[in-house]
Amino acid sequence: MKVAFIGLGRMGQAMVHRLLDAGHQVVVYNRSVDKLKDVLDRGAIHAPSIRNAAAQSEGLVLSMLADDKALNAVADGPEGLIANLPANGVHVAMGTHAVGTIRALAARHAQAGQSLVAAPVLGRPEAVTAGKLGIIVAGPAVAAEKARPALESIGRRLFAAGEEPGAALAVKLANNMLLACAIEAMGEAFSLVEKSGAPGALFREILVDGMFASPAYNAYSTIIADKSYDKVGFTAALALKDVSLALAAAETAAVPLPSVSVCRDRLLSAIAHGGAEKDWAIMAHEQAIASGLKG
Amino acid sequence: MKVAFIGLGRMGQAMVHRLLDAGHQVVVYNRSVDKLKDVLDRGAIHAPSIRNAAAQSEGLVLSMLADDKALNAVADGPEGLIANLPANGVHVAMGTHAVGTIRALAARHAQAGQSLVAAPVLGRPEAVTAGKLGIIVAGPAVAAEKARPALESIGRRLFAAGEEPGAALAVKLANNMLLACAIEAMGEAFSLVEKSGAPGALFREILVDGMFASPAYNAYSTIIADKSYDKVGFTAALALKDVSLALAAAETAAVPLPSVSVCRDRLLSAIAHGGAEKDWAIMAHEQAIASGLKG
Amino acid sequence: MKVAFIGLGRMGQAMVHRLLDAGHQVVVYNRSVDKLKDVLDRGAIHAPSIRNAAAQSEGLVLSMLADDKALNAVADGPEGLIANLPANGVHVAMGTHAVGTIRALAARHAQAGQSLVAAPVLGRPEAVTAGKLGIIVAGPAVAAEKARPALESIGRRLFAAGEEPGAALAVKLANNMLLACAIEAMGEAFSLVEKSGAPGALFREILVDGMFASPAYNAYSTIIADKSYDKVGFTAALALKDVSLALAAAETAAVPLPSVSVCRDRLLSAIAHGGAEKDWAIMAHEQAIASGLKG
Amino acid sequence: MKVAFIGLGRMGQAMVHRLLDAGHQVVVYNRSVDKLKDVLDRGAIHAPSIRNAAAQSEGLVLSMLADDKALNAVADGPEGLIANLPANGVHVAMGTHAVGTIRALAARHAQAGQSLVAAPVLGRPEAVTAGKLGIIVAGPAVAAEKARPALESIGRRLFAAGEEPGAALAVKLANNMLLACAIEAMGEAFSLVEKSGAPGALFREILVDGMFASPAYNAYSTIIADKSYDKVGFTAALALKDVSLALAAAETAAVPLPSVSVCRDRLLSAIAHGGAEKDWAIMAHEQAIASGLKG
Repeated sequence: MKVAFIGLGRMGQAMVHRLLDAGHQVVVYNRSVDKLKDVLDRGAIHAPSIRNAAAQSEGLVLSMLADDKALNAVADGPEGLIANLPANGVHVAMGTHAVGTIRALAARHAQAGQSLVAAPVLGRPEAVTAGKLGIIVAGPAVAAEKARPALESIGRRLFAAGEEPGAALAVKLANNMLLACAIEAMGEAFSLVEKSGAPGALFREILVDGMFASPAYNAYSTIIADKSYDKVGFTAALALKDVSLALAAAETAAVPLPSVSVCRDRLLSAIAHGGAEKDWAIMAHEQAIASGLKG
Repeated sequence: MKVAFIGLGRMGQAMVHRLLDAGHQVVVYNRSVDKLKDVLDRGAIHAPSIRNAAAQSEGLVLSMLADDKALNAVADGPEGLIANLPANGVHVAMGTHAVGTIRALAARHAQAGQSLVAAPVLGRPEAVTAGKLGIIVAGPAVAAEKARPALESIGRRLFAAGEEPGAALAVKLANNMLLACAIEAMGEAFSLVEKSGAPGALFREILVDGMFASPAYNAYSTIIADKSYDKVGFTAALALKDVSLALAAAETAAVPLPSVSVCRDRLLSAIAHGGAEKDWAIMAHEQAIASGLKG
Repeated sequence: MKVAFIGLGRMGQAMVHRLLDAGHQVVVYNRSVDKLKDVLDRGAIHAPSIRNAAAQSEGLVLSMLADDKALNAVADGPEGLIANLPANGVHVAMGTHAVGTIRALAARHAQAGQSLVAAPVLGRPEAVTAGKLGIIVAGPAVAAEKARPALESIGRRLFAAGEEPGAALAVKLANNMLLACAIEAMGEAFSLVEKSGAPGALFREILVDGMFASPAYNAYSTIIADKSYDKVGFTAALALKDVSLALAAAETAAVPLPSVSVCRDRLLSAIAHGGAEKDWAIMAHEQAIASGLKG
Repeated sequence: MKVAFIGLGRMGQAMVHRLLDAGHQVVVYNRSVDKLKDVLDRGAIHAPSIRNAAAQSEGLVLSMLADDKALNAVADGPEGLIANLPANGVHVAMGTHAVGTIRALAARHAQAGQSLVAAPVLGRPEAVTAGKLGIIVAGPAVAAEKARPALESIGRRLFAAGEEPGAALAVKLANNMLLACAIEAMGEAFSLVEKSGAPGALFREILVDGMFASPAYNAYSTIIADKSYDKVGFTAALALKDVSLALAAAETAAVPLPSVSVCRDRLLSAIAHGGAEKDWAIMAHEQAIASGLKG
């Protein structure tokens, strides 16, 4: 099939490669053209504008954008997706966006006779390339069905979250906040262990040996035990963005999230101390400071 | 070898069976005699008093007691372990106790020329029976070495936490508090997901499929998704005891634990609402109430 | 002097009456005309549009708007203040707005050769009418000086917060969040007192007799002791707006605010339970529920 | 009347002076005799033992002790108050103790045919001397009546909290925790204000000018604005003791106290950073550090 793709950052590029691998024709648009080189070399078709991408797309456009501002910039205005997608066109938004932003955008697409499908993902570029990506999908059934072949080419498994696109984001944000809470709790536990006289490395061994043996606890307990916050998988600044999106979603839904607020405060302290671009496990370092273990 | 065992609750009984399975001679004492029947039938030797248990023990006594009060009652007084263990005798305390209680008891044993080894465990009676128990061991090296054969018969793996018994408890409590934090965070995440319109069961699937695939998240996300708080693995009341011990250890060590305080408050609300004897995953139900999802 | 005033809600009306009382000429604009009747009867001059208000204003326009969206709607576009205020014109924003919104608006005014003065207030309409209003003022010195006579007519006391308008909002939001924290803490204290068997009314007496004898503690301890949450001074929904603005300001400034997050969660629970339009002291009722004291 | 007084620390001495001022005969006992000099010079009668103090007391003994351990040491054992007070004797405990300790002690006194009246106080030695002390009184009516003349001589006002002594402590601890929460919230607010570019001194002025004009906010906003944590009114270490007693009382009553847990964590950080003997307003300094304002 033929599909347009907007937003060729690291995630977007990895996704387009997967689509090309699967034999799809992919029309690509990115604000800065230099990110397109690799995928054009592999046969992707260049669209010089969003309007052109929409025109070439056969009514299916995927976007992978860094934030809400970029998403709205792509969707709105006379050159944007809403003005240029055909009736019954489908926009599949794969970035991590605010629940409220997605709901508002879905309404604008619907008014134009189009559909928005939210398809936020679980995993980083390496997971895309390795074919391990999980994708949470929510949107009108017909539209989600139209998007399915492309999404199946990109990911390992689709999780159907119903027909309301905002719900997919809530699920995605809930997943990320759970990871934030796990890192925060590990930070607290390591502080208690170390300040009580036991080695952190021992505690790490216990964690991954038993109840917590999982990719998340394995990866982050290792970073914390090793204090290797300079090898950055995901920055504290991006983590704060995700945590804030979760808190905003919770405000909309009237759900108190006390543990997530603890994570937010921890990230703010880490950022106040210059850690914005460190790996977000720097939260554990911040907890160590608050416990008098450092500095 | 010959070893005495004090405290034949469910955990203690399972442990004594393991010791007998391994061919050790086990002298048993319990305040209420009716709990001894099974192990006496299997060949354990009855001690009518702690004094007698100590006398028969060849200097190695294991205790598995419900709380600090029971532990001190066993240790102190003219009929207690300290007065009746021989010089160089070793008391291995396997219960979950306060760090401060263990440190104070270690000092009293040391004053009597004896040693305390702390050996708190990771797992419930079923894990003991299945030979899957992890044991954290801390105490003077010679004493820990003397206890090793018995502990190896009981558990699957020993984790050496150094020579200071309190440290083993800090590690044990840190592990339990991490589990409390994971349950709390899951409760918050499920509330957000469900109140945002996505099914909890879907969220559960995502959790156990990816980053969080582990015994802890698998077990508790299932209970939360199913709301099966009446199948009790560990009560809210006992969880509060453990969480309070972690907070007390943190107070001693001057370590702030904000996420753990969130768990404490959640458990107190659950207990205030009559949930003391429910499974501690009732925390998630309490979060759902606070989110307006129930009652 | 002659001044324009935009936004004739309850606060705005009370302020315009104060300006008229002081002998100023006041040009008034409001989106819905029916709110203007009283002030027009007293001699205010009707402006049919923002453009007209700006034209008649002699370069000084005060606004008292409900939220950021209303403020930006008044400022932007071809009919807005920025396009229609003369060079060196001064816009005095008196509403409670986001620090970031005020900073961005100040930059847009500056680009047009105009100045924004932020002048958020401490008090409700009754305080305005009684001449008791405190006003926090921040903006370029010349502009603040130009606004001074009008602001002195409206309020009892001006607090100078420097030349950066955002700072005035930070001070205002800090004041409001402090009140939220006081109410939350009182709620917690009353729950502990009542559930421990002492009467809440006694506790109230102690508070206002001693260390806490102040308008804030007097008013809110009375509401809490009487459970009179239906007499609404300030709704839970508006309180959530203010608390969220404080948290947003803190995110911008990288300041963790754990107590304020507790307030946010409490308000969300109150709203989840249907209390959005109750007095925000309903926080104490929500705490009572979480303590098992109610329903 | 004649009354015995046990515990002549700074508070106890000030109280005994008040009793002597009022013309009562006061029998005094203190573990270390050197603290007795002043009051003996003024005519107090020396008791060489608790037993002797009880014997001379005409059945009314007041105690003002630093902690629960000291209280129990005075009450228990063959030389203690319970063994030596006559039937119908009254022990008035004026220190700040755990609710649970007071309830347990009340039961032991009752078993001996005696009564415990709890009479914790609101104020420091200077307040005692100035005749400004508030006293919360709870205990059996007849016993409280017997204690009344002595308590009225010591304090300015008695607050009757019923017949259950533990309730008086709950009220006292609730009052102290409210103060802790106010200091914490001020610390958060000052951080937000200062990091947003407004001067802390301005914020202080606003606080004491308006809603928060009270001894508590006046005193602590001054310390925080001046950063004068070395002038110690009440240490962080003692504050942690009180906050922990409040949390323990809340655990007994099953009351979640999230704001108080924030205070606890803040105090622990301050102590971890060497601030145990600073004034407890050091909490605000700790918040400033967590916000990146210091160090």
